[in-house]
Amino acid sequence: MSAVEFADASLDPALAARLRPAGHTPDGRPLVTAVAQDADSGRVLMVAWMDASALAATLRTREATYWSRSRQELWVKGATSGNRQRVVDVALDCDGDTVLLRVRPEGPACHTGLTSCFDTLTLLAAGDGDGTAA
Amino acid sequence: MSAVEFADASLDPALAARLRPAGHTPDGRPLVTAVAQDADSGRVLMVAWMDASALAATLRTREATYWSRSRQELWVKGATSGNRQRVVDVALDCDGDTVLLRVRPEGPACHTGLTSCFDTLTLLAAGDGDGTAA
Repeated sequence: MSAVEFADASLDPALAARLRPAGHTPDGRPLVTAVAQDADSGRVLMVAWMDASALAATLRTREATYWSRSRQELWVKGATSGNRQRVVDVALDCDGDTVLLRVRPEGPACHTGLTSCFDTLTLLAAGDGDGTAA
Repeated sequence: MSAVEFADASLDPALAARLRPAGHTPDGRPLVTAVAQDADSGRVLMVAWMDASALAATLRTREATYWSRSRQELWVKGATSGNRQRVVDVALDCDGDTVLLRVRPEGPACHTGLTSCFDTLTLLAAGDGDGTAA
């Protein structure tokens, strides 16, 4: 995969060269994974995708902006729901395919109305022996 | 995509039916995204992938176990480095394609030796006007 796979008029070329795809759009454009974390509570709120233009918009506007795989369009978080995420800082991970956004949410992150998309289903609860091998 | 795409002898069928692919292995098996967060500090440590067997092993052993896309094999975190992640709890997100692990790490999460894979590169720093639109 080319170092310029993420090349986009809106994105700093030096940054584009650092990015690696975690996935692709149906028409083959590369996507990075984006994790949004509440900057104050530390809670992980949601995980979504960004194409080059969504990442560029996020960095430029400090409004979390994703690529919606279901709607196949740029998605300014909260543009319709009002539940925007103001971006405090953004970090790229060591292999260049995931960004971590620390945000100040203006409402629930989840379309279900829950604070976090991870409030839906606990697969393994903390309990006796938590943190130790079974 | 079928509700039994994640069917695997090692995984509870009711759970398998809840999962949706965030990606696939080169030979077409479905993967979910996995976010590891330090249960004590709240720091997001790394983002990786899990196939059905990696998720089943994580839930059974409380040792974070991923699917390595680069090595194309099951990857018990820390099996070689010693930097294991003891799993406190696991949650599934609303659309079933991402799991959040809260862990107690026994060393750095990142292969570079840094605590978090997100310690590598800051793309946007907190600063004047952080959390507000530019």
